[in-house]
Order: sequence, then C-alpha cells, then structure tokens
Amino acid sequence: MNSSALPNIPWEDRPHGCSEVVWRYSRNPIIPRNLIPSSNSIFNSAVVPFNGRFAGVFRCDNKKREMNLHRGFSEDGIQWHLDDTPITWQCKDPELARFEYRYDPRVVWLEDRYYITWCNGYHGPTIGIGYTFDFETFYFLENAFLPYNRNGVLFPRKINGHYMMLSRPSDRGHTPFGDIFLSQSPDLIHWGQHRFVMRPKEGWQSTKIGAGPIPIETSEGWLLFYHGVLTSCNGFVYSFGAALLDLDQPWKVIARGGPYLMSPQTLYECVGDVPNVVFPCATLYDPPTGRLAIYYGAADTVVALAFAYIDEVVDFVKSTNDL
Amino acid sequence: MNSSALPNIPWEDRPHGCSEVVWRYSRNPIIPRNLIPSSNSIFNSAVVPFNGRFAGVFRCDNKKREMNLHRGFSEDGIQWHLDDTPITWQCKDPELARFEYRYDPRVVWLEDRYYITWCNGYHGPTIGIGYTFDFETFYFLENAFLPYNRNGVLFPRKINGHYMMLSRPSDRGHTPFGDIFLSQSPDLIHWGQHRFVMRPKEGWQSTKIGAGPIPIETSEGWLLFYHGVLTSCNGFVYSFGAALLDLDQPWKVIARGGPYLMSPQTLYECVGDVPNVVFPCATLYDPPTGRLAIYYGAADTVVALAFAYIDEVVDFVKSTNDL
Amino acid sequence: MNSSALPNIPWEDRPHGCSEVVWRYSRNPIIPRNLIPSSNSIFNSAVVPFNGRFAGVFRCDNKKREMNLHRGFSEDGIQWHLDDTPITWQCKDPELARFEYRYDPRVVWLEDRYYITWCNGYHGPTIGIGYTFDFETFYFLENAFLPYNRNGVLFPRKINGHYMMLSRPSDRGHTPFGDIFLSQSPDLIHWGQHRFVMRPKEGWQSTKIGAGPIPIETSEGWLLFYHGVLTSCNGFVYSFGAALLDLDQPWKVIARGGPYLMSPQTLYECVGDVPNVVFPCATLYDPPTGRLAIYYGAADTVVALAFAYIDEVVDFVKSTNDL
Amino acid sequence: MNSSALPNIPWEDRPHGCSEVVWRYSRNPIIPRNLIPSSNSIFNSAVVPFNGRFAGVFRCDNKKREMNLHRGFSEDGIQWHLDDTPITWQCKDPELARFEYRYDPRVVWLEDRYYITWCNGYHGPTIGIGYTFDFETFYFLENAFLPYNRNGVLFPRKINGHYMMLSRPSDRGHTPFGDIFLSQSPDLIHWGQHRFVMRPKEGWQSTKIGAGPIPIETSEGWLLFYHGVLTSCNGFVYSFGAALLDLDQPWKVIARGGPYLMSPQTLYECVGDVPNVVFPCATLYDPPTGRLAIYYGAADTVVALAFAYIDEVVDFVKSTNDL
Amino acid sequence: MNSSALPNIPWEDRPHGCSEVVWRYSRNPIIPRNLIPSSNSIFNSAVVPFNGRFAGVFRCDNKKREMNLHRGFSEDGIQWHLDDTPITWQCKDPELARFEYRYDPRVVWLEDRYYITWCNGYHGPTIGIGYTFDFETFYFLENAFLPYNRNGVLFPRKINGHYMMLSRPSDRGHTPFGDIFLSQSPDLIHWGQHRFVMRPKEGWQSTKIGAGPIPIETSEGWLLFYHGVLTSCNGFVYSFGAALLDLDQPWKVIARGGPYLMSPQTLYECVGDVPNVVFPCATLYDPPTGRLAIYYGAADTVVALAFAYIDEVVDFVKSTNDL
Amino acid sequence: MNSSALPNIPWEDRPHGCSEVVWRYSRNPIIPRNLIPSSNSIFNSAVVPFNGRFAGVFRCDNKKREMNLHRGFSEDGIQWHLDDTPITWQCKDPELARFEYRYDPRVVWLEDRYYITWCNGYHGPTIGIGYTFDFETFYFLENAFLPYNRNGVLFPRKINGHYMMLSRPSDRGHTPFGDIFLSQSPDLIHWGQHRFVMRPKEGWQSTKIGAGPIPIETSEGWLLFYHGVLTSCNGFVYSFGAALLDLDQPWKVIARGGPYLMSPQTLYECVGDVPNVVFPCATLYDPPTGRLAIYYGAADTVVALAFAYIDEVVDFVKSTNDL
Repeated sequence: MNSSALPNIPWEDRPHGCSEVVWRYSRNPIIPRNLIPSSNSIFNSAVVPFNGRFAGVFRCDNKKREMNLHRGFSEDGIQWHLDDTPITWQCKDPELARFEYRYDPRVVWLEDRYYITWCNGYHGPTIGIGYTFDFETFYFLENAFLPYNRNGVLFPRKINGHYMMLSRPSDRGHTPFGDIFLSQSPDLIHWGQHRFVMRPKEGWQSTKIGAGPIPIETSEGWLLFYHGVLTSCNGFVYSFGAALLDLDQPWKVIARGGPYLMSPQTLYECVGDVPNVVFPCATLYDPPTGRLAIYYGAADTVVALAFAYIDEVVDFVKSTNDL
Repeated sequence: MNSSALPNIPWEDRPHGCSEVVWRYSRNPIIPRNLIPSSNSIFNSAVVPFNGRFAGVFRCDNKKREMNLHRGFSEDGIQWHLDDTPITWQCKDPELARFEYRYDPRVVWLEDRYYITWCNGYHGPTIGIGYTFDFETFYFLENAFLPYNRNGVLFPRKINGHYMMLSRPSDRGHTPFGDIFLSQSPDLIHWGQHRFVMRPKEGWQSTKIGAGPIPIETSEGWLLFYHGVLTSCNGFVYSFGAALLDLDQPWKVIARGGPYLMSPQTLYECVGDVPNVVFPCATLYDPPTGRLAIYYGAADTVVALAFAYIDEVVDFVKSTNDL
Repeated sequence: MNSSALPNIPWEDRPHGCSEVVWRYSRNPIIPRNLIPSSNSIFNSAVVPFNGRFAGVFRCDNKKREMNLHRGFSEDGIQWHLDDTPITWQCKDPELARFEYRYDPRVVWLEDRYYITWCNGYHGPTIGIGYTFDFETFYFLENAFLPYNRNGVLFPRKINGHYMMLSRPSDRGHTPFGDIFLSQSPDLIHWGQHRFVMRPKEGWQSTKIGAGPIPIETSEGWLLFYHGVLTSCNGFVYSFGAALLDLDQPWKVIARGGPYLMSPQTLYECVGDVPNVVFPCATLYDPPTGRLAIYYGAADTVVALAFAYIDEVVDFVKSTNDL
Repeated sequence: MNSSALPNIPWEDRPHGCSEVVWRYSRNPIIPRNLIPSSNSIFNSAVVPFNGRFAGVFRCDNKKREMNLHRGFSEDGIQWHLDDTPITWQCKDPELARFEYRYDPRVVWLEDRYYITWCNGYHGPTIGIGYTFDFETFYFLENAFLPYNRNGVLFPRKINGHYMMLSRPSDRGHTPFGDIFLSQSPDLIHWGQHRFVMRPKEGWQSTKIGAGPIPIETSEGWLLFYHGVLTSCNGFVYSFGAALLDLDQPWKVIARGGPYLMSPQTLYECVGDVPNVVFPCATLYDPPTGRLAIYYGAADTVVALAFAYIDEVVDFVKSTNDL
Repeated sequence: MNSSALPNIPWEDRPHGCSEVVWRYSRNPIIPRNLIPSSNSIFNSAVVPFNGRFAGVFRCDNKKREMNLHRGFSEDGIQWHLDDTPITWQCKDPELARFEYRYDPRVVWLEDRYYITWCNGYHGPTIGIGYTFDFETFYFLENAFLPYNRNGVLFPRKINGHYMMLSRPSDRGHTPFGDIFLSQSPDLIHWGQHRFVMRPKEGWQSTKIGAGPIPIETSEGWLLFYHGVLTSCNGFVYSFGAALLDLDQPWKVIARGGPYLMSPQTLYECVGDVPNVVFPCATLYDPPTGRLAIYYGAADTVVALAFAYIDEVVDFVKSTNDL
Repeated sequence: MNSSALPNIPWEDRPHGCSEVVWRYSRNPIIPRNLIPSSNSIFNSAVVPFNGRFAGVFRCDNKKREMNLHRGFSEDGIQWHLDDTPITWQCKDPELARFEYRYDPRVVWLEDRYYITWCNGYHGPTIGIGYTFDFETFYFLENAFLPYNRNGVLFPRKINGHYMMLSRPSDRGHTPFGDIFLSQSPDLIHWGQHRFVMRPKEGWQSTKIGAGPIPIETSEGWLLFYHGVLTSCNGFVYSFGAALLDLDQPWKVIARGGPYLMSPQTLYECVGDVPNVVFPCATLYDPPTGRLAIYYGAADTVVALAFAYIDEVVDFVKSTNDL
C-alpha cells in the first residue's frame, strides 16, 4: 500500500518563509469537534486510500465522554463524512464483545484487507485487532496483549515471516512512563519474541513515547513518526518526531531525530479538552512526489493535517540523529 | 418562588441550526473578571428575582486571590452592578465570625427570606448558611456540617416537615472523589438523617459530581442540574448535566441524563484561571413559558449565561436516562 | 456512670522503679487475636461496668478482614468471653441496615441506656450511633454525620441541654490529616453547632489526632485521652496522650499534655497487622481510689490494658501543658 | 506430575486443638536467610519431586540485594542444599541474555521437562520462561509477555491443545492494583487469547491478587492457591487463599474462598525485609493421602512450610465461596 | 547601575482608564517563541543597559526542549536580536563545564562587570554564577550552592562587605513548596550566613515564591519583585508582586504587598507551553522619571513587557502591606 | 585523631563461624531507648575518644518526639552516661538560636577542637556546625548550607587548604532520592566549590545514600562508611556499606563496595520506631591493631555497636568494587 502512487493526496505547499520540515494545513482543523451530532470531540484518527478516495476510522468521544470508533469517507482527504453511530464489530466470543471503550485507531492495508488496531478496554486498556475488507463490515479478531497497553501499530507487511507490531506497555491511568516495544506473531493472534525498541529521552520526549502512524518503508529503513510527552508543572505536552528502524530487525533503531517535528503551538492545539497535544495517527504517502500528509489529533478535540516531503523527513532524522 | 411567573427572565432564542438542549448566550461572558476594581475574577455565582428585578450573591476572588461573596443587582439579569466590598455578615459567635474564605454561593427563597449557602472556611471547607430579607443586611446562621464539604444546595421548600440540603463531602484539597448526599433538618441548624443520592459514573462525570442550582420542582420530580468532573492528564474538566429526584424522597434518583448538557468548549470556558470549567450555580425559571436561564461560572474567571426550556431538559433526562 | 465507685476495677500496681504516669499490665495482651474462631484480630474495643461485672463491644476483624462489632462479657475486666458472631442491629430503614463495615467502637452510659458509637461504613466512613439497654438487643439509631468521619466519641451527659460528640473529619483512605471537632445535638439524630477543638502539633501528634475513650468529668475539666499519629518514613506511629476540656464549653482546651503518655514499645504493640500502634478506646474509673484502667488496641491486632491514677494524669496534663 | 503418589512428601500432623485448614510447620522457617554465604534472604521459591527426592529453584537476594535464581536439592523437602552461585541460563539471543533481575520462580513438570517461569527483568518486569531436563542445564526460552507483569504460573498440562498461563499485569513499581488473567499459547513462545480470570475483592485481597503455586487438577476443578494484598496505613499485607477454576475453561472461576487460608501472624512472617508477608510459590501433593505441603516465602526473608489436606481445602473453597 | 539615568528606557504610558499599578505593553509579546530558528520558546530572560543600548541573556528552549542561554542585543529594548546558538562559557574545571541545562537567567552590573546567575543543571538544579565584561566572552565562575535550588538573584552591590544573593531552595521536580532565603559571600564562590527572608502566604502566593529581577535600591528599602504560585486543580498559576527589604539587613522584610501586581490574564500569558504564567526576570529603571520597564516571561513561551512608576510600586507595597 | 592509638577501643572478637567483614556486639543494643528519663529513643549518635575515656553527642528524641542532642560520657565506650537535658548552645545571633530540631550528629577532632555537625532545623533541615573544646561548653557556629540537607560529615583535616564536608541535599520530607556531594570552605562558615561524589545504585542503595561516620584516612584513600536505602512496598530499609575516596580530591570515588556490610536483621534493628534501620554515625579506630568499633542507630530507637578490621573493610571495598 505504501508503495502505490497516490496522486490525489491532500496537499498544500510549504508557506513562503517557512523552514520547518513539517508544516500545518492553513485551514486546520479539518474536522471540528462537533462534525457529527453525537460527538464531543473527534481526534487521533486514521485514514487510508480506499477505492480512489479515502476511508478512515475515527475516534469520536460522545457527549457522555464515551470513547468509540466511527467510520468515515472523504473524496479529497480533507472534507470528511462520518457516521454518527459507532462501528459495530462482528465478534464470536461474547466475553470479548462487551464494550468498555475504544480509542486511538490505526489502519493498515496488510496482505488482503485493512487491519485496524486501537486501544481497547478489556479490564484495562490493551490493543484490539480487527479488520475489514470493505469498510462496511468490521470483524474483531482478538486483543493482542494483556493489559495495560496503548499505541499498538502494525507494520504494513510481514518481516521474516512474522507480523510485527509496535506498542507501548502502560499502566491503568495517565501513565507517567512509556517505552516502545516490538512484538511478533505468526497469526496476528498469538504474540511473542517481544523486543525493546526505544525509551524516552530528555526534553520533548522525556516522559513517554509511543508509535504514531503505520511505519513507512524507505530505502533508509522504516520511517516511524512517534509522539513524545514532556511533563510540565501544568501537565503533559504531546509533540511528535521521527526515527528510522532497521528494515529486517525493526526493533533496532538506526537513527532518531533529536528535535521534535511539531509541538503544540496553535490555538486549536493548545486549547481544548486536553491542552497542548499534537498526536499523529496516520499518514498518506505519494511515492512519486515524496509527499506526506500527516493526520494528527489536536488538543484531544479536533483532527488537523500537516504536510512534509519524505526525503526531508528522512534527512532530518539522520542529520539530527541523537541515539 | 419557583412557581411564580418571571416574564422578565433574560432570554435569547436558540440559534438557527443549533440542536442542543442548552445553548449559550451570544454575548457571553456577561460578567468580566474585572467588573469591580478589587476583583481578580467573578464566577460561580447565584441570582434570584428580587422586587421585579434581580439580585445576586457573587463569588469574587480579589487580587490577593482571597475568595469572598459580594452583593449585586441587575435590571435585566444580564448587566450587573456589584459592590466592590464583600458582604458583611451579622454573626453572634465570634468563633464563627472569623473569616477564612467564602465561595460558590447558592441563593434560595425559602418560606420568608432568602437563604444563602456557600462553601465556608472553618478549619477547612464546610457549608455556611446565612440569610437576608432585603439584600441589605445579611445574617450568618451556622455551618451546617463538619468539614470537609462543598456544594451545599437547599431545596426551595420543606419536604416531609424537614429542610433538605444536598452536599458533597470532600477532603481538604482538590478532592479527587465526590458523591452527592442529602441531609435533613428541623431548624436549619442541626442536620441528620443523611442519605446517599448518587455517585460519579463513567465519562464526563467520572471523578466527582456536585449539585448546582437550587432544584426546580416539576411534575416529574425535582430537576437537579449538577456538575461532573473528568480527570484528563492535564487536570479536571468540569461539565454539567441533569437528573430528576423523587419529589417526596429526594435522595432517590428517578432519572439521570447520560450525556452532559454543556461542556467547556468556548475560549472563555477553556482559558482562564482554571481552564475547562463550566459550573452552574443558579437558574431563573419562568413557568408560563418554560424558559430557563442558567448562570454558570466559566474557567473560574467569569460569569456566563445559557438558556433552555425546562420541558426539553426533563425530556432529555428521561430519554437519555442512564441510572 | 463515671462517678460511681468501681471497686472491682482491674488493677496492677505500678512496677517497682517505673516512673511512668501510665504503665502496662504485665500479662498483656489480655485478648489475643484468635480469641474467637472467626477472628483475624481483636482490638480498639470498648468496655463498661455492667451489672457488677463488665460488658464490652469489640472490634473483631474476621478472616476475610471484614471489620465488625462483637459483644463480650467479663467477670474481672481481664478475661473476656466474646460472641463468635457479630452483633445484629435492629434498624427500621433498610437503606441504613446494609452492612459495609463497623469498627473502633466506644460505649457510654448516657441517661438511661448504653450508647455505642463507631466508625460505620455508609458510602464511606462516618459515625454510627446505636444503643442497648441490656447488651442483648442492640438498636441502630442513625449516622450522626455525613461521611467522611472517624473516632466519634460521646460525652457521658448533656451539656447546656445538648448532647455532645467529639469526632475527627477524615477523607476516604488512610487520612494524612485530622483535627478534633465537637458537635451538638438536641436528639442524637440531628447535629450542628460544630466547633473546632484542637489540631495536630509537632512530634508524636503531628499528622492527626482523634478522641479516645469517653471523656471523664473531673473538677479540672473533662479529661480526654486521645491518640496522635506521627508519620515516619515507614508509616504511621500511633501514640496517646491527654488533654483537659472546659466543663461547660468542652470545645475549649484548658490544658494539653506535651509528651505522649504511651507510645508503641513492646513487641505486641510494634509487631502485628499494623506495626506501631497503641489506640485507647475505653477506660474504667474508680473515683474512691482514683484508679484508671485503660483499654487499648495494640498493633491493630490485640487488646491490651494499662493503668494510671487520674490525679497523676491530670497533673501530667497541667504540668506539661503545651497549648 | 500432580497425579503421582509422593509418599515422601514432607509432613507434620495438624497440631492438637488447631482447627485451621492450613497449619504451619513447627520448625519454620525451613530455610534461613543466610543458608548460603552470598544471600541476604531466600524466599518465594519453588520445589518439585525429582528422582525420588526434591529439587527446587530458589529466589536468593544477595547482599547487593540483587534478585536471582539458585538451584537446590533436598532429600526430605525440608533440609535444603542450595548452590551459592545463581543458575546460568543457556540463551541464544544476547539481547535476552542480559541480566536485570529474576525473582519469584515457579516450576512445573510439563510433558517432557521442567518448565520454570519467573519475574524477569527485561526493560521492566515480565514473565521469563525457561526449562531444564535435569536441573543441571537450564535453557532460557523467551519472555512470554510484554512488560509489566508478575506472577506468571503455567498449568501442568495443555488444555484444549494450548498451553495456559496465569499472570498478573502490573506497573513498574510496587503496583497498587492487580487482576489475574489467563493467556494461551500453541508453542510457549507466542501468547494470545488472553482472558480475564478474577479481580481483587474486599478485605485481605482488596489491593491486588496473584497466582501462587502451579494449579492442581482435582475433580472439582483446578485448585489455585493465590496471594492477596491488603493495604494498611503502614504498607502491604500479603495473605493467601484459594479458588477453583473450570477444568476446560480455566479462566472461569467456579468458587472462591471468602476468608484467607493464612495471613502473616508469626514473628518470621511479620518481621523481616518486608514485614507481614506470606507468599506461596509451590506445593507438593500426595494423591493417595491427599496431603499438601505448601512452600511459602515469609517476610520476603525466609522460606517456610505449611500443610493441608486437599479435600479440606476444596471444601473450604466451596463452603466459603464468595464469588 | 540602578542609580544611572536611563532616558532611552522603553516606555508606553498607562492606558486611559486603567488604574493598575503595573500595565502591559500594548504590543506584547515583544519576543515571539520562534524569533530564532532553533527556538521552541523564549522567555524568563534578563536585560541590562549596555553601551547606550541594551544587552540581554535569554532563556531559549530549543526544539529538543533543551534549556539554554542565548545572548541578545537591542537598540530600544523592544526589538531584540538574539544569537541562534547558545552562549559558550569559559570554564577551567571540566567537571563543571559539562552541560545539563541552563535557564531563567538574571543579569546585574556589579562593581566592574556583568554577573549572570541562572538555574544551572549540575546533578540537579542549582545556581550557576558567571560573568562577562563585554557580552562577547562569558566566564563560568562556580555553582553558588548545592542542589536543589532555583531563582538565584544577586544584589547590585555589596552590603556590609559581603555579596548577597537571594534564592529559593527546591527539590528535584516541580517543587510544591518554596521560601526565599538570603546567602552571603566574601568572594562570590563561598556562601554562608544563610538567612530566611520570607515564605508563601495565602492566595496567589500560597504554594511557593521566588525572587524575580535584581532588587532596586530605594530610600524605602530594596524593592523586590517576586513571583508567587497558586496551585489550582489544573496546575500552577504564576503571578508576581513586590516587597521591600531592609537596606542593611536585606533578609528583613519591611513591607510586603498583599495583592499581586500582575496575574496571567491575556491570551499570551494563559496559552502556551505552560498556561497561566507571568514570570519577571529583569527591570530597567530610569531614576529621573521613576519609570520601570519590567520584562517577564509569559506562559513559558514568550517575552513580554510591562511598565510602572517606582514610587507607585513602593506606595502599593506599603499601603497594602500584609506581613 | 584518627592516627592515634586507641588501646581501650571497645572490642569483641569475631564470633566463631562468622565470616562477615562487620559483626555485631553480642550484647547489643548498648544504649536502650529509655536510658534517660526524658527519652523516647536514643540512636544515630557520635562518639570520640576524650581524655582517655570517651565522650559523645547523642540523638535523643524525647516523649514529645522532639529531636535534640545530648552529651554523654563513657569509660569503656559501651556503658554510657547521658545528660537528661539537651546540650545548650552558645549562639550570638538570636535568629539562629531559635530551636526547631537537631538530629543525627557527627563529631570530629579538627585542628584544635571537637566539631559537631548535625541536621539542624532552620526553616527546614540543614547542616548545623558547632564545636566544643571540653564537652562542657558548646558553641553554635552557623548553618553550613541552605536547606534542605542532611548527613553533613566533616573530614578530619583540611585538604588542599580547605575544610571539606560531605552532605546529602534533600527535600522537606522523607526524601525519596539522595546523592552525596562534597563542599569546600576556607573558614567553616562560607562553603562552595561543591562537587558531586556519588549517587544511588541498584539494590540496597537504590533510593538514596548518605555519608556515615567521619572518613578515616588510609593509605588507600579515605574510607567512608555510608548508609543506603532501598524502598520496599512497606517503606525504607537502611543498610550500610563502604567506599574509598581519593585522598587529595575526595570527591573522586576510587572504589565502592558492591554488597552492603550490614543490613537490618536482628530484632532490635527490625522492630522499633522505624523498622529496618541500621545507621552508622561514628567509628572508633585503633591503628596499631586495625580495630574498628562502629556505632550505629538501630530501628531509630537504640544505639548498637559492631566491629571490624580496617584492612578487611578496605579489602572488601576493593575486591567487590562496583563503580
């Protein structure tokens, strides 16, 4: 999927005078908190190309502040139409079908279908795995891990014969720590051979880190956008940066960009249900042009969009490498 | 009081295209933080009809950030004139007359006078009770409870021969829990027969809840607006919803609306001394039209106004009932 | 009750060479943790003279670690026989009859019956009030206060026409603070006119304090034994001391002994379910001899006994007075 | 293994007058803290029948307070000989071979070898799995789960074609919560189909619970001894009780004993590096007589032994069932 | 330095209708967060008159969120030019030359050079002292104190033959307490004769206080602007006020203004990396006119400017004195 | 002082079969908690040879749990006579003379007198310095540092022309961290050139470390006994070990013993006001025999004694070196 051209990728050129590697869409946020009648907020959501247009799975917190996943479609990746009711999951085991909460989805085309992973409430947060072939019917497969976990992100292909997933083991609450690990599976149900990938570092990523969008395969390694959290005296600040992982042993970090690529600086990122959050969950990528469109949640309230060129991001990671 | 017509109730029709049960006044906030020279902020305040116009007791934090109560009057319920100096209380016992702090008042016409309850500092926060006949002279009666308590709200009439008060037992600090209880009194001085009313639930009201304005008697039960608090990684978020209590045994909850009626979403609710707070302390009600004007503190900084129809609120509570 | 001679008071003379105001019984503990088959521990219990012998209400935690109250009798105040099943309470309101937990009882002869107060679970800890005429049938009256409260201790007679109770407002957990307050009631059901009595001080009573046995009327004032808690790096240490309260306005402290009277120093006080606790809940008093027998819980595991002369205790409080 | 007769099981009859289901060995502790020169403490250890005598894997904390596993042998299950140096693990992946810490082992005969599970430090505590055929050479297989986890306990046979393991997801520190889950595996390397088993309840098991020895198959279900933790104001208190799990769907609890079977009450359980701990990690079982020998760590300092009859334990669980 | 005329002091008259003692510059913030390419934010910085224009040392957090000090110059005190690279410090001892972090500088002309103090990371935060003669070469002298300390502020001349410094002993994190102390030195290297100056008080300064700009000598005493912190349920709120210290014994507080002089109220003070912060680090002063220009960090993101007349500030401190 | 022979050093040979480098006195504790009438406990105390016998400064907590210093003398270093009243300090500055608390003294002969350092309450814990020539009159010099500090320990001679002191910067409470630093002074009043010495390591010293007795000069470096703290789920455990510091640059650690030398294992170390504490504050040393007598507080309740040979300790540090 990552290797197909995507000529209709949403895009806006870098503003004049801007020297940032990643720049914001001028009409952000693209999805307001109240796009659908039931929503309190829509953010931390994942989109993919789908049949010449775009489909997505969106985190919508309703006015009870229940967290759930909704389906959406778009012609241009900017204007989105979302179902007002959450996705219904086909699930054989009634024990698993019980709803606690679902949030922060990622979507990836893998082999023959779209897999969705998300933070799934099952006696605590863990990583739920589901899939769809058509964005009409959604199947719940299993929880990949024991609680407590968040930010489970699949690789877009098997590596060494195994499915691979990044995740961040957590605790039950607003976890004040968090490393990224990689787990391997023959069948997407049973996971093992867990390997440590990377831990927080000083500064913008000093409290915890977590994988963001699906890693993008490049000749330099897997390009991973990830968020990092700094704890100020007034709470968490979520920024994001990028790293390169080894193509064959993706638990090995080749390079890790020192500075963040984006931190919360605009009003829609700094004011909302959780101030000071930028949280990327998906990218679109057009290999012929190298264009990247990055979808990120802002202030845990709205969805925003940013742009970059993949070569510049890779260069940034390598040139500011701070392993 | 609740049963008298109030033709001069402040009012603004629901905006075109809005489907919310409660909508904001377009010129919010109605009271800025610096309305009087001494104030740092004015919020969480209570108003009543008075002699054809309106009177109120306002929480004004001064520039030392001392919390105190000020008197105010208004012709239209929107433009308010507040005394720059706090209310002086007549009090026989010097032990009780000592000032620690006073905040978050409620006012109710009860039998023959206006009773005021507020969070009163007496070796910790508790519920002070005072009264006035004329908004000229104010008398301090007693503290209803032992510390630590907040959000003491009287019912507007005796029930089964007893005065009734809702309150939320607390701890000494930024209490991370809180249920609503009801207490009963023959004389407004001695309180007992305490009964549990309701506790937090998931989502917007998962950390603590507290009674808001004076309950309004309806044929369906006592209509209670109450605030609920959710704890994000960056602190508390105060929203408000509503419930119906049994007319004769008001510690029994008949119905409890699932979603919130309002959460902090505007700049004046999200930015200020305490970001992300809407906190209702008073309503005005006009039975002939069913109009409700809801006064609420925003961001612990200013006073704002919202509107609703009582029938729609009652319907909302019943139709989204989530006991 | 306090004024009657009690010639059969348990007693052991002060050991040779001992200069302490309060000394331990040489055969402590008098009640082992497993005196009855169901008990994990028996401690923090209250005894009274009864029909020429002694009766008591005992805190027994069973092997689920449920906390409940058991009845006991003794001929000599030292050898005790306890029911293996908890006390059953007559209670009209089923809402109140529901059992959460009951612990740390006090018992007092007041007017015409024995009143029992204890920490009663009702959506949090509060002060339950019950009574018995005969230690056969026990009646539950009401919870005196809203949660969260502990250590409710009645005075043995009305003062100024009101019943009086000391208590310590708390929070929901292992409260790290605690002052003693006094509340007043016309009927033992409704309580008000709450007055602050005293707060923690440096040293052994620096974290929190709480009333212990029923206050004893003396010509110098009400003699109050109370526990105090110091927080070491390894947890709470419970000691106890004494104070004198004004006879007519018992919220006024006349004198407060600076040092503790007893701190945990023996193996049965330092080792057990909660190390380092001495916690007095009852005294017996023989006015003709001035003898006091003090019953205290040790290490939250067993009941122990100590002795003193009331005149020496009063002298101690006055001579070390440290208001 | 569980079904073989074990005539040389260590044993001591129930003391005269004792009515406890589980009773202590009169010469406890059987292993003192300094049995080997390098040890600070020896506790929370696992033993199995081995070649007509007994072998075990022992948690020995050395005088740096490093936690590691040592091998031991015994003729009678009471007198033990331990290696002074820790077990060396054969491990192909150097990433996994790095030592952080190892503690709280369990050992089980499963199919063709002895499997050992323990809390293994790999960027946080998780469950290490190793095996040995002969207690001479030990192989490290893999970490079963992502961190953070403790108390991983294998079933002694496959169920429905899968290996099964109980565990308790945790956080990084002295975790103040903890439920028991079950995970399933085709190969002991990849684990999935995680199912919730049980959570804490009031009283002795109110903070967290964790599986203890290898479950024992009985006609009534899998007999599981498990520890439970209560948080007093002075820290954790570890007791243990028992439950019965469904034979075919062992994540389903058939019955759960209400009271504990043992709580810390002796000096060697109440005084030591961590006061107030009894923590069982292994049982020996002789089906013909129904005898059980329970090995438990005491005060995180020494190893002690207790005895029971399996039928009485099963009866206890069923008769005090408190699901 | 404080006594020289400064006719080119930046200035803007008090707005019409404003009655505040301190008023904001209408074009705030004067330094945006991204003034230099490498910066995430620029705030809490210090300026001095220098060769007829202005020089300063600025806290710039870069996009790694490393905290460091940068040099800047300005013609008018409003438009600033900052180096994109941090200051390099000459330092003889390599142990001290190692960089952890540097933030919150103050600058003072003292005897023959400009001394700079800042919060310097040396195994924890402490007070670094450096100097420059020309703002070209900067020398690192020593850390004045053991960790953990912040807000070290020198007096602009020796007093009683000693150098004097105010500071606030802290802990390692977002310290929830903080008093101001004064220390004395014969050589700016060795410090002693530490004296307590003042502690937090109720309200806006109830959590901690810390010295702000260099004290200004007046006939009434040393005028000290200082920040105070209030802890709301959503974090710290930083305001600032003023006090007068004895000229000869500057650890003695002559008067302390009760209300704050400024609290965070504008969007640039309430929204940013740390919401709700005003934090003054420098003043410029023109004795002939009595004008003060106060430089303060806003929301830990930008630099802003405010104005006052020194006589009015001194009058404010004395008239609202609340020792 | 350290180089003089001390033939009357208290001594008891290593017990038969014991292989520990440090062994306990068989009649421990040497000072019970109630040696003097006023004391609750006596521990963490310092002794020196004095006029052919021994003198000491003792931490006695009285029955208010006030912490203070008392003088004591002994003929043999084992039987001690302590004053029942605390030491009175000559102090010129009334600001410093005010008593908060004093604890954990160290005593050293330095040049011409005995210097005493202790944890001194001055608006928080810091290091007080005093001296005596004769153990009759005691002078208070100054507080060496700003709060918050503990465990200030002087070297027994100037090094490079400066007095040297080790200390552990702390916070206000039961500090959960702590590194050892070294500070330098020309006059014992002003201190600077602070240098980091060492931080906690895994295991027994993982939470915090602090210097113990006065360092002893050896040909291998300064021998420093220091305590280390491990945090169990039930609180702190204090053990002690040793390190060697460079003779000329004593902030440089030459070697650091990996295991502890002693951890709390006896009843008097594990049971008391603070369970599980061994805390050395003084040694006596006889160079001709190499004998060391180590005085340590046990369980924050009593004083105990241990013995070692200095060569064996130095060998231990070097052979188990774990820098």
